[in-house]
Amino acid sequence: MPAIQDTYPDDLGHCYGCGKNNPHGHRLKSYWHDGEALARFTPEPYHVAVPGFVYGGMIASLIDCHATGTASAAAYAAEGRELGTPPHRRFVTANLNVDYLAPTPIGVELELRGRAVEVKPRKVVVEVTVSAGGKPCARGRAVLVLTPDAMRQS
Amino acid sequence: MPAIQDTYPDDLGHCYGCGKNNPHGHRLKSYWHDGEALARFTPEPYHVAVPGFVYGGMIASLIDCHATGTASAAAYAAEGRELGTPPHRRFVTANLNVDYLAPTPIGVELELRGRAVEVKPRKVVVEVTVSAGGKPCARGRAVLVLTPDAMRQS
Repeated sequence: MPAIQDTYPDDLGHCYGCGKNNPHGHRLKSYWHDGEALARFTPEPYHVAVPGFVYGGMIASLIDCHATGTASAAAYAAEGRELGTPPHRRFVTANLNVDYLAPTPIGVELELRGRAVEVKPRKVVVEVTVSAGGKPCARGRAVLVLTPDAMRQS
Repeated sequence: MPAIQDTYPDDLGHCYGCGKNNPHGHRLKSYWHDGEALARFTPEPYHVAVPGFVYGGMIASLIDCHATGTASAAAYAAEGRELGTPPHRRFVTANLNVDYLAPTPIGVELELRGRAVEVKPRKVVVEVTVSAGGKPCARGRAVLVLTPDAMRQS
């Protein structure tokens, strides 16, 4: 089963956070199984807020990209279609809300789990938890909308 | 007048988003004047969501670091003290809420403006707007708390 992000069409695969076509970026990979999306990511040693702990922007970015992927997979699932088949279901974020529950240690693989709590044709709401070593560090809720035509160049 | 982030003590100046001591990071600089913090930042060409537009994680990261800086300056102002004087007022984020109002164009200098809407000794609430070419693209609200001792290594 490919990563959700690897099923995005090429013109929508350039995201710095998760695009397979962005050689500079994080290339987050989220996998869909049984109604839940799972991703694992280990920040670089310099991705710190203060020494020892991951900076908040990275955590927000991971939640954002994982939520976008979760929304895509949930939309395909709701339509009973296989991931990546046209017409494409690629989402962008309208609102992102992150609770930082505990300092997130650097040098540890982070686990993100996402679930859609609302799925409509053009809008999906996703909740994501970020854990380090089994301990929840952050929780996010994102409202995603289908990528507007104005953002597509092909 | 130095940037707010440049007045953080050395052990709290390593943030990937805004730390003067992080050679890999964005080094966002926020300047305090007359009750408002202002920062300008131009993302790199590869910091895209889809071609032409800034990725959401970058916008969240900029809002996060600018809000943290705004909180610090507002806390000093509330105490009638000069920025950077001990005891230090360096904040971390408890909650970050971002509304993406419009696609944010890449290749344009972004302007961030932050104001504190609540200032307590250990908690500050900040609102930030992000504009490109004078047009608001995102709006953020952050709840910041004084950096816990557990996150300090000196």
